[in-house]
Amino acid sequence: MDLSLRPIGVVRSPYATPLDAPRQGEFARRESVVEIEERYHDGLAGIEAGARLLVVWWAHLADRRVLSRPGTDGVFAMRTPHRPNPVCLSEVEVVSREGGRLVVLGLEATDGTPVLDLKAARAEYDGWCGLPGVGTL
Amino acid sequence: MDLSLRPIGVVRSPYATPLDAPRQGEFARRESVVEIEERYHDGLAGIEAGARLLVVWWAHLADRRVLSRPGTDGVFAMRTPHRPNPVCLSEVEVVSREGGRLVVLGLEATDGTPVLDLKAARAEYDGWCGLPGVGTL
Repeated sequence: MDLSLRPIGVVRSPYATPLDAPRQGEFARRESVVEIEERYHDGLAGIEAGARLLVVWWAHLADRRVLSRPGTDGVFAMRTPHRPNPVCLSEVEVVSREGGRLVVLGLEATDGTPVLDLKAARAEYDGWCGLPGVGTL
Repeated sequence: MDLSLRPIGVVRSPYATPLDAPRQGEFARRESVVEIEERYHDGLAGIEAGARLLVVWWAHLADRRVLSRPGTDGVFAMRTPHRPNPVCLSEVEVVSREGGRLVVLGLEATDGTPVLDLKAARAEYDGWCGLPGVGTL
């Protein structure tokens, strides 16, 4: 089974380190840029200013060994980036898009963070069966 | 940079194939079981019946080459599992938990799906800075 991740882009952020970054994207008051590689641009069709997206990013600075700490719940009950597979989610608003360059608000990922995926923030009716011509899988 | 995914568990589901599965987790009326590997059990502390979690799963049956189809938005504007990195999200309710065996409602992943992560469904104040003793990273 192929579980290899292929980053589709990168975050350009005013937050250089986790110390600079807000704890959650909802506290991110500064704009970031999500740069998507050219070969993936066809996947961006339909994304316009005002859209709300989930940015799925790889917390490359996370400690993957952490499962819990005294006095806290386990990482699977929390949102900390420190977890065995540091796949993180931020719901953002698209301020503008020019080609593969998306200016967004609400992203706490630090500068240089690999981007794995973008998704509609709200699950609509386009799950398993929703892509015409592709069928159910 | 290490972007290797390590499944933390597997889905045991009454939905054998995508044809059997509902389009979205919200339409999943049958219970599924998320089995977490023993070495990750410490990360489950605090997860009890009634909890709402995001299950992050790997759509191993997805077509990773799909970016768009005529007449639809691109995959990054949608929720289809077909995408370059088929990392999918389902918000579930925990019906019960016994050790690493979580019975859940709301999961459209098919039987045998690799589980990558569990997270609190609602982002709380435990982001970058939230894990005492770990610091910000």
